[in-house]
Amino acid sequence: MHITILGGGGFLGRKLAERLARDGAVGGHPVASLTLFDLAVPPALPAPFPVRCLGGDVTSAAALAEAIPPETNAVVHLAAVVSAAAEADLDLGLKVNVQGTLAVLNACRALPKPPRVIFTSSVASFGGGQHANLADEARQVPGNSYGAQKAIGELLLQDATRRGLMDAISIRLPTVVVRPGRPNKAASSFFSGILREPLLGLETECPVGDDFRVWVCSPRRAVEWFLQMLVMDTLPLGYDRGVNPPGLCVTVGEMLAALEAVGGPAARALVKRVPDPAVEAIVAGWPASFTAERARQLGFSPHESLEQVVRAFVADDLAATKAERGL
Amino acid sequence: MHITILGGGGFLGRKLAERLARDGAVGGHPVASLTLFDLAVPPALPAPFPVRCLGGDVTSAAALAEAIPPETNAVVHLAAVVSAAAEADLDLGLKVNVQGTLAVLNACRALPKPPRVIFTSSVASFGGGQHANLADEARQVPGNSYGAQKAIGELLLQDATRRGLMDAISIRLPTVVVRPGRPNKAASSFFSGILREPLLGLETECPVGDDFRVWVCSPRRAVEWFLQMLVMDTLPLGYDRGVNPPGLCVTVGEMLAALEAVGGPAARALVKRVPDPAVEAIVAGWPASFTAERARQLGFSPHESLEQVVRAFVADDLAATKAERGL
Repeated sequence: MHITILGGGGFLGRKLAERLARDGAVGGHPVASLTLFDLAVPPALPAPFPVRCLGGDVTSAAALAEAIPPETNAVVHLAAVVSAAAEADLDLGLKVNVQGTLAVLNACRALPKPPRVIFTSSVASFGGGQHANLADEARQVPGNSYGAQKAIGELLLQDATRRGLMDAISIRLPTVVVRPGRPNKAASSFFSGILREPLLGLETECPVGDDFRVWVCSPRRAVEWFLQMLVMDTLPLGYDRGVNPPGLCVTVGEMLAALEAVGGPAARALVKRVPDPAVEAIVAGWPASFTAERARQLGFSPHESLEQVVRAFVADDLAATKAERGL
Repeated sequence: MHITILGGGGFLGRKLAERLARDGAVGGHPVASLTLFDLAVPPALPAPFPVRCLGGDVTSAAALAEAIPPETNAVVHLAAVVSAAAEADLDLGLKVNVQGTLAVLNACRALPKPPRVIFTSSVASFGGGQHANLADEARQVPGNSYGAQKAIGELLLQDATRRGLMDAISIRLPTVVVRPGRPNKAASSFFSGILREPLLGLETECPVGDDFRVWVCSPRRAVEWFLQMLVMDTLPLGYDRGVNPPGLCVTVGEMLAALEAVGGPAARALVKRVPDPAVEAIVAGWPASFTAERARQLGFSPHESLEQVVRAFVADDLAATKAERGL
């Protein structure tokens, strides 16, 4: 299996690549080669198969032709301008998230055999809010440009699939916790921050109350779902290539309880309550839960517990995050 | 009110322009000027206000800057590659229906005041089939490239509206009957053909049975809806700028009965039954009905009867169609 990861230098792309390198295969199919493509050349990755690391712009046909060579069997398309950046700069979001996805479509059309394509869409492509428990038939009425652009990407790839040009699955990823690294300007940054920062021994602010609900998944679970999507039978999807995966609907209070279970009361005490109505207004627009029935029927693996999520962050990412931040 | 009609040389664009010329105003607002833009320069239109007729490509920023001058208050965006052509040529459909709509968005952003934008989306942006009666919350899972591209256009304009760059309404037009002119290669062509051709004294073929259901609207009703959308209060729409208008769900048998009521048994006898499973397979994928509750609450005018639709074709278009076709 020849696999290309677009956005292969990013957080989830790297985790998927490392897992492929560790396993050497997906669902019993040996990985023959891996191409990691990102704006900056991704760092080298030791693996039992050839790994190419390429830098380039996802809107460039020439760069994509190199990143998606004729033998490609699967493309994991994670390259995107994220929510806060897409909201701050409409042109940039349209360029990368819409024209970039169209360029990926065109690169895939040029292949001799239609590839499997995994596209990361987002919970942000839906409205709904705190009291929502969205069914699989729910419409995407996004309240942000990132979500609108992801919904557009889904439509492009769904139609390309119907036309036989590729075999795409769009996964509407929940908010991923715990992200390693640093706090950023995304409105959702605090969902990782209230777990990560205290485990680093640092104070952090929580802008919403204990009852605030959020739909999350772990990095490990996202990677598991990617692996499943690389080899799953897509026939049951029909024309509808979008999947709401079985994330976890959790409250902030439950997240803090899991933090305390892993890091003790001292860790929890590092979370300061600083209400921020502007941040709350943004994240409160996203749906807090999904039924995710279809994904379960399709065999998407169920989510581990919140405490397991926090323990996995400690096992997988805490040391590297400490080193990166000089702690 | 300064109005631009993109696709102003087409069937519906021309009808809207003629109505504006006749009334001189929309909802009490005088029309100050009208620009008709199409690939070929639209024919001149006598009117009580200045009318500019421009030819150009809807994907050209320069052409759109001329068609949408700074004083523009409203843009009616009807320029599109239609269903059969978009299915036959993916690149052409993406260029005109996606990049063209993006170019319209950019032209509207450049205006000093966000304009009202009327975008014609389509029933083809939904699946559903013969037994569907789609609620306003129904998802768009298109089974054709035209529908996918229209759904993408809706998302682009919905997000631009949320950002305050325009004030858009997307109307998912039903199959329009009775189209004047000639039969064409669209799978839906026969829905107009079985009414128009017999009234011209010509034999025609009907590829589906009497019980086949279809969601239709008349050219007159579509123009009425355009006029309403030009001046309606859009505040109740919120983020959701798509409207399923109150069309008519009719059977082919009911259409033939209306034909007979207007044209007599001789007209009806000109319709020959020639089953065509390929055509039926396409049109049977479109939803046969919508509840259209939201549109009614928003004040979209109710549809006239099928017999009135046929009589309106005779009054408005029969003579011109005869002349055009040398009959």
